[in-house]
Formats: sequence, structure tokens, C-alpha cells
Amino acid sequence: MSKRAIGLLDSGVGGLTVMKEAMKQLPNESFYYIGDTARCPYGPRPKEQVKEFTWDLTNFLLEKNIKMLVIACNTATAAALPELKKQLDIPVVGVILPGSRAAIKTTKDNRIGVIGTDGTILSGEYRRAITKKQATANVFSQACPKFVPLVESNQLNSSIAKKVVTESLQNLKKQKVDTLVLGCTHYPLLRPLIQNVMGKEVTLIDSGAETVNEVSMLLDYYDMAEVKTDEVNERKFYTTGSVNMFKEIASSWLEMNEIEVEQVSIDRLKGLKVK
Amino acid sequence: MSKRAIGLLDSGVGGLTVMKEAMKQLPNESFYYIGDTARCPYGPRPKEQVKEFTWDLTNFLLEKNIKMLVIACNTATAAALPELKKQLDIPVVGVILPGSRAAIKTTKDNRIGVIGTDGTILSGEYRRAITKKQATANVFSQACPKFVPLVESNQLNSSIAKKVVTESLQNLKKQKVDTLVLGCTHYPLLRPLIQNVMGKEVTLIDSGAETVNEVSMLLDYYDMAEVKTDEVNERKFYTTGSVNMFKEIASSWLEMNEIEVEQVSIDRLKGLKVK
Repeated sequence: MSKRAIGLLDSGVGGLTVMKEAMKQLPNESFYYIGDTARCPYGPRPKEQVKEFTWDLTNFLLEKNIKMLVIACNTATAAALPELKKQLDIPVVGVILPGSRAAIKTTKDNRIGVIGTDGTILSGEYRRAITKKQATANVFSQACPKFVPLVESNQLNSSIAKKVVTESLQNLKKQKVDTLVLGCTHYPLLRPLIQNVMGKEVTLIDSGAETVNEVSMLLDYYDMAEVKTDEVNERKFYTTGSVNMFKEIASSWLEMNEIEVEQVSIDRLKGLKVK
Repeated sequence: MSKRAIGLLDSGVGGLTVMKEAMKQLPNESFYYIGDTARCPYGPRPKEQVKEFTWDLTNFLLEKNIKMLVIACNTATAAALPELKKQLDIPVVGVILPGSRAAIKTTKDNRIGVIGTDGTILSGEYRRAITKKQATANVFSQACPKFVPLVESNQLNSSIAKKVVTESLQNLKKQKVDTLVLGCTHYPLLRPLIQNVMGKEVTLIDSGAETVNEVSMLLDYYDMAEVKTDEVNERKFYTTGSVNMFKEIASSWLEMNEIEVEQVSIDRLKGLKVK
């Protein structure tokens, strides 16, 4: 029997930061990744629409018989996780709780910053998750709506990127947080710039990388982990947008020379009715 | 509605190392702990008997309406985890998989040592769990049957303890492992001695502490985590053996002045028939 893959979805290339950690921690597993680049960013969209788009991507992955779904996008997690967990019969993992747990474990002064898209910050999900576990935590949130477009256009170190990151974090920097959650899976691609602005004494939490610990745990918990075999592990990438741009960012970020990226039209997604 | 507690069981005081980390990471939760001190150690006993004893403790905790069971004992995990997971309708967590995952993440040279009781080492569960995930890992196992009696008699730093630890680890030390799993929840109480013999370049993995990450994750995953309330969180301790000795070790290890310990007879345990 061929291996069943783990499915990851994101609004674009951000979830690749989760993918990178997943390939490292779970070398025996196969992965399918879909990025909705054509409709990115999700951040400014209304919750109902984000939910609808997330279902489109989910149905695409379900058709490929995935064994676990990772919502590798904070905006989609905030909008759709409870519904997906309830309705799917495979384990579903989001990125907000793992990031929140890691922040609580890391902070010493109980001053935690969270940055994310408008959708994520407005949802209040990080604040809720953190203060639910640690009532005394001070959470300082800042939406950074300009970050995702920078990453999607592969401007990771341009002078514009530096300017945008510096300006976006100016208010948050004054709050003297000791821990900052990168509450959007695109943001680790801007990590050097963010660290530089916040200062090296602030610990950055990569919500996506933390999520992989949860995936690994659940694979064990449900006894679903793959044992090493001679079969080649699949790593397949799909995008609703430009294959070339996706390939450029993905091969550089994942340090892979050969990367298989297929374009999937929105029409094809809309034609799916698995659930 | 009163909070439902998390139940922890161990052959004796070893699981207190899990308890300590649990109280730190999960301050809003209530905990019931039972240590089977009267029948400790479990390590040299046949698997079927360990399984039977583990069921006795489990039934005691189930009667108290726990919401999750932590088998805070490696020997009991090796003997009874699959059966308990299958038969209970609450989440059940063992200590072997979390310790194995942490070892794989930590090792750089792929040379991992595992120490535990006879029962744990003979079961081969650590070797199986580690090599399943990381086929190239070299696992060096060593049973240390003399460690648990040292801990249960509160000899954590005596000259006898030093001699026993040095002699028990002599062979393992030659294997040049870079990571050593403390595959028995009693062993973190001997940590300074073990670290001293192995050398400070060897990273010690506390299987119990790692387990708490899994407990925390599952509480979130199943949406069972407690929110802070004004109710006092319960921390209740039960032992089948001497209350005084248990109290002495527990209050020192957990750094608690007031500790409520109740004696439970084996007859009482045998009279329980929840499952």
C-alpha cells in the first residue's frame, strides 16, 4: 500500500516554513502542499470568505486521500479550524495553539507580542489562547498587513522590505515584549529583518515550526507514523497562482534543487465537492 | 461544575518528576497522583503482573472521574499502554514516545543511550520507537535495576548512590552517546549523579518532562484545558506504601510545604472494578 501523505494548505508560500520543519522532523512522511497564491492575501478578507477558500483547498487535499490536515496559515486557522476539526474524520492541526503554547513557555516577563494578518489579529484567537492558559500574561497584538505581499513577491531583503518592517513594528517595540509570536507562516521568511528591528533579546516564536511538534506527536498518538521504506517519499506542491514564482521561493527556502509544482485553477477547486 | 483532574500513576515516587513539570506548565489543572510504593519496583516483575498492577491504579483514578490518564512510569507504559489506550474512553499518555521524540531531536551524532528498568529495557520499546522514526539511529540500552530502590529510599546523594550510579553506567559511557534518555521517571532525581558520570557534554532527556508537552497539547487538541477560575486546584497524592516516606520525598522534590498524602491499601485497589 502506498503511503498516505500529510496535507498542508496556505494562502500562498507562507506554509513552506511549516513544510521545511516538517521535512526535517518527519523524514519518512510524504507531503502534499497547496498554496492559494491566486487569492492571496487572505488577511484582509472577511472570515466567511476565508472559510470558503480554506474548504476549497481542503477538498483538493482530501481528494488526494491525505491522512492528516495541517492548516499552515494563521488566518485560515482563525477562521476555519473549529469547523474543519468537527467535520473531517482525519486529524486537523492549526498553527495558533502551538504558537501560543510556545510563547507561554518562553516568556519570562509575561510580556508577549503577537504579529499577524488583519484577519488573525482581529479574530483575537492568539490573545484568547494565551490568556486562557496564563491569565497573567500581557499580550500586545499588531497587525502587519504589508508583510505577506512582500514575501509573495520574494522581496525578503529589499530596502522596501526593511522600511516596511521597521515602520510596522515601531509601536510594538515600545511595549518591551520579551517574546514575539510570528503569527503568520509567511513571517519567518522576514525573520532577520524582524529580529533586527525588535532586538536580539526578543525571542521570536515560529508558529509553524512549533506546529510540527504537534503533527509529530499526533502521528504517534494515532499510530499513523510512517516507517522508513524503500519507497520514495512524495513532496508535491500545488499553487493556484504562478508556478514560476512559487518555484523560485520554494526551492530557495526549502533548499531543494528539483521541485515539482503544479498549477491548479480556481475553477478546478470550485468543481470539487468532497465534503 | 467542579474541575475534572488529570490522573498520574507510577510504581512509586518516580512520577513526581512528571508531576513537577505538569504543575509548572499547567497551573490551571487539578491532578491526582497515585504511587504503588508497596509493590515497587515494577522493573523486575513479569509484564503480565505489571499490567495487572497498572489496571489497579488506573481503576482507582477512573473512580475519581479523571479526564486524562498519564502513565508516569516507563515500565507500566511498556507493559500496558496499548491496552489502556484501546480500552479507556479518555486520552491516555505514556512516557516512552515523548522521550524518544526528544532524543531524536536532540542527538547530533545519532548515538542515543537509553537507561531504564529491566522491564523497560527488555521490552525494547525505546529502541523500537527511536529506530522507527530514525532508521539510522544507534541505540545503546542499559538496564539500571538498582536505581529505583535508591530513589524510593530517598538516597539521592549518598556515597552508595554515587557508587551504584558510577558502576551501572560504566559500559554505557564507553559508547560515546551524545544523548541519554532517562527512561524511568525515578531517574531525574539522580540527575546530578548521572550527569557527573556521563560528562556534561551528554544531553540528558527527561522522559517525564517531555510527556507534559504531550499532555498540554492533547488538552488543547481535545479542548479540555481548564480556564483559570477562583476554585482551588487540587493536587492529591495517594500511595499504597508509607505516607511519611512519600511525603518526605514529594515535599522536597515538588518544593511544597503542605502536601496531602493518603494511604490506599492494596485490598482497596483490588476491590475496585470500574473496567
